[in-house]
Amino acid sequence: MEKFSIGIVGYGNLGKGVETAALAAADVEIKGVFTRRDPQSITTQGSPVFGMEALEGREDIDVLILCGGSATDIEVQGPELAKDFNTVDSYDTHARIPDYYDKMNRICQEAGTLSLISTGWDPGLFSLNRVLSDAILPTGETYTFWGKGVSQGHSDAVRRIDGVKGAVQYTIPNDKALDAIRAEKVSVLSTSDKHTRVCYVVADEAADKKVIEDTIVTMPNYFADYNTTVHFVSEEELVRDHSGMPHGGHVLRVGETSLGNKAIYEFSLQLGSNPEFTGAVDLATARAVAKMRAKGNTGAITILDVPVGMFSPRSMEELRRSFV
Amino acid sequence: MEKFSIGIVGYGNLGKGVETAALAAADVEIKGVFTRRDPQSITTQGSPVFGMEALEGREDIDVLILCGGSATDIEVQGPELAKDFNTVDSYDTHARIPDYYDKMNRICQEAGTLSLISTGWDPGLFSLNRVLSDAILPTGETYTFWGKGVSQGHSDAVRRIDGVKGAVQYTIPNDKALDAIRAEKVSVLSTSDKHTRVCYVVADEAADKKVIEDTIVTMPNYFADYNTTVHFVSEEELVRDHSGMPHGGHVLRVGETSLGNKAIYEFSLQLGSNPEFTGAVDLATARAVAKMRAKGNTGAITILDVPVGMFSPRSMEELRRSFV
Repeated sequence: MEKFSIGIVGYGNLGKGVETAALAAADVEIKGVFTRRDPQSITTQGSPVFGMEALEGREDIDVLILCGGSATDIEVQGPELAKDFNTVDSYDTHARIPDYYDKMNRICQEAGTLSLISTGWDPGLFSLNRVLSDAILPTGETYTFWGKGVSQGHSDAVRRIDGVKGAVQYTIPNDKALDAIRAEKVSVLSTSDKHTRVCYVVADEAADKKVIEDTIVTMPNYFADYNTTVHFVSEEELVRDHSGMPHGGHVLRVGETSLGNKAIYEFSLQLGSNPEFTGAVDLATARAVAKMRAKGNTGAITILDVPVGMFSPRSMEELRRSFV
Repeated sequence: MEKFSIGIVGYGNLGKGVETAALAAADVEIKGVFTRRDPQSITTQGSPVFGMEALEGREDIDVLILCGGSATDIEVQGPELAKDFNTVDSYDTHARIPDYYDKMNRICQEAGTLSLISTGWDPGLFSLNRVLSDAILPTGETYTFWGKGVSQGHSDAVRRIDGVKGAVQYTIPNDKALDAIRAEKVSVLSTSDKHTRVCYVVADEAADKKVIEDTIVTMPNYFADYNTTVHFVSEEELVRDHSGMPHGGHVLRVGETSLGNKAIYEFSLQLGSNPEFTGAVDLATARAVAKMRAKGNTGAITILDVPVGMFSPRSMEELRRSFV
C-alpha cells in the first residue's frame, strides 16, 4: 500500500474529524496540525501541533487539508497555501464556487500544484450523485433533502427569542414527501414540503412557553412555512441528548428511461457525526489528490474530476477483483 | 455540446435500451445497429441496421456498445472488436472480470484503443458505491441487496415443475432486514436473510396446486432457505401483470467514523425497466470513453477509472456552477 502524508490546517470540529479518519487509515502519515491559535493551547489525538508559520519551507507534506470555515478562512488560506502545497478543502458557499475555482486554478497552474475544492458530502458526494444521476437519466427531476441534522442558523434564531436560555433545532426530511417521491406520486416539491423542523428549547423559569412557541412557529423565513414542532426540555436534557452533531440527507432523481418506465436513483447518508464523516471524505479526497499529483496533474479540480478508484487505498487490481 | 457517435452491437433488450437512451440524448449520433442476425429481420426505433461484417473499415464510430450476453457474446466480441474500436460492455461474470480485463487491456494497448468493461448498475454503479463507501468508511460492513426484480434462473426452476404452465419469480429485498441495517441493529446477514422470493404461477387445470407450492418452497438451493410466497394466477394475469422487466437494489455500508459514531451510506435503484436503465448507463459510459480517448487514454478501464464529470453531456463549468 502506497503511503501519503497530510497536514491538517485548523483544529476545530472538522480538523479533529480529519485526524480521527487519518488515525484509522493504514496509508496516511499526519505530519502535523497547523493552527493560527497558540499551539500550546491545543490538545490533539497525538498529532504534533505547529503555528501556521511552520508550514514555510515544508516539503514533506503531500496534501494540506484545509479545515476552516468557507467565508472566514478558506477564501483566504486556499489561494495563499496553494502557492506551495497541494490542497483539499470543503469550500461550501455554492454560489461562489465558480469564482473560487477560477482563482485557485490560476494559482495552482502557475505554481505547479493541485488543489481539490469543495469536497465533503454536500458539496461533495451529493454533487457527484447529482451529476451522475442527471447524466444517466436526462429526463427527470432531482431532489435534495437534508437531515436529520442540527441547523446552526435556525438554532441561533430560536436562542435570540426573549425567555429562551438554550435551543437546538433539527432539520428533518419529511418522510411523507420522501415516500411520495419514491412511490412516484409527486413531481415538484418546495423546500418546506420536503422538511420539517423540530426545536428543543430551554425556557427561563419566568417565561411564557406559549408565547415562545408561537414566536418560533410563526417566525418568517425560518419557521413560518414549515411544519415545526417545539419541545421544552431542561438544561440537563439539552446537554445530555442534543449535544451530538448528527446530519445526513438524500439525493433522489426520479426519471423516465422511456414513456411510463420510471427509474428512481437515490443516495442517502445518515451520520452520527457530521464533522467526522466530512473529515473521512476529505481524507479520501486527499489520497486521490496525492495520487493524481504523482501522475502529473496540476490546477484546481473538484470531486467530479477524480476517477473513483483513486479515493481507495486499495490497488486497482484488488478493486477489479473484489469490488467491481 | 460536443457530439459523439456510437454503434450498437446486438439488438436484444439491452441493445434496444441503448438505442432508447441515445434517442433521448442531445449529444449522440447512432451510426447503426450491428447484428449477427439477418438485418432485414430487425425493426429498430429508426437506427439503420447492418450485418457485423459492415463494421470492417468503419472509422466514423467513436464507441461501440456491446449489448450481447457475457459468456456467449462479449468474451468473444470484446477482444475481436477492441482491435479496431473503442468499446463499452456490461461484462458481468464477476469472477472472470480480472482475466477479461487483462486480455482486453493487452489488445487495447497494442491497438491504441480504449475499452471500458463491466459497466451498468451491478457491476457498474454498485461497484462504484462499494469502492467509494469502503474508501471513506474503512471500518464497517457492506451489504448488497437485489430487487425487486425477475430472476430468470428461479423462474425457469419453477417452470420445470410438473403441472406448471408458466411462472415468473421475483427476488425482493427483505424490508425488515433493510430496516434493521438502517437502524444499526445487525452486523451480518446471509443472502437468504436479505431477500424474499415471490412466485406467480400458472398451473395446469388438472394439477394439484398444493403439491406445486410444496415443491417450490422446499426446492433446495433455489427456495428452501428463503421465505417464499406462491401465488397462482391465470395465464392472462401472468402476461398482463408480470411481463415487465423491473429491477433494482441497494448497496449499504454501515460504518463507524469513531467508536460509537455510526455512518450509514446507502445507494438505491428502483427501475421500471432493467434493460433501459442499463442501456442508459452504457450510453453515459460511452460518452466518457469518447472523451477519455480524445484526451489520449488507451487500454482497458472500468467505471472506477472515470472522472464522474465525464459521464455528463454538460461542460465542467456548468457542472461546477449548477451541480456541485
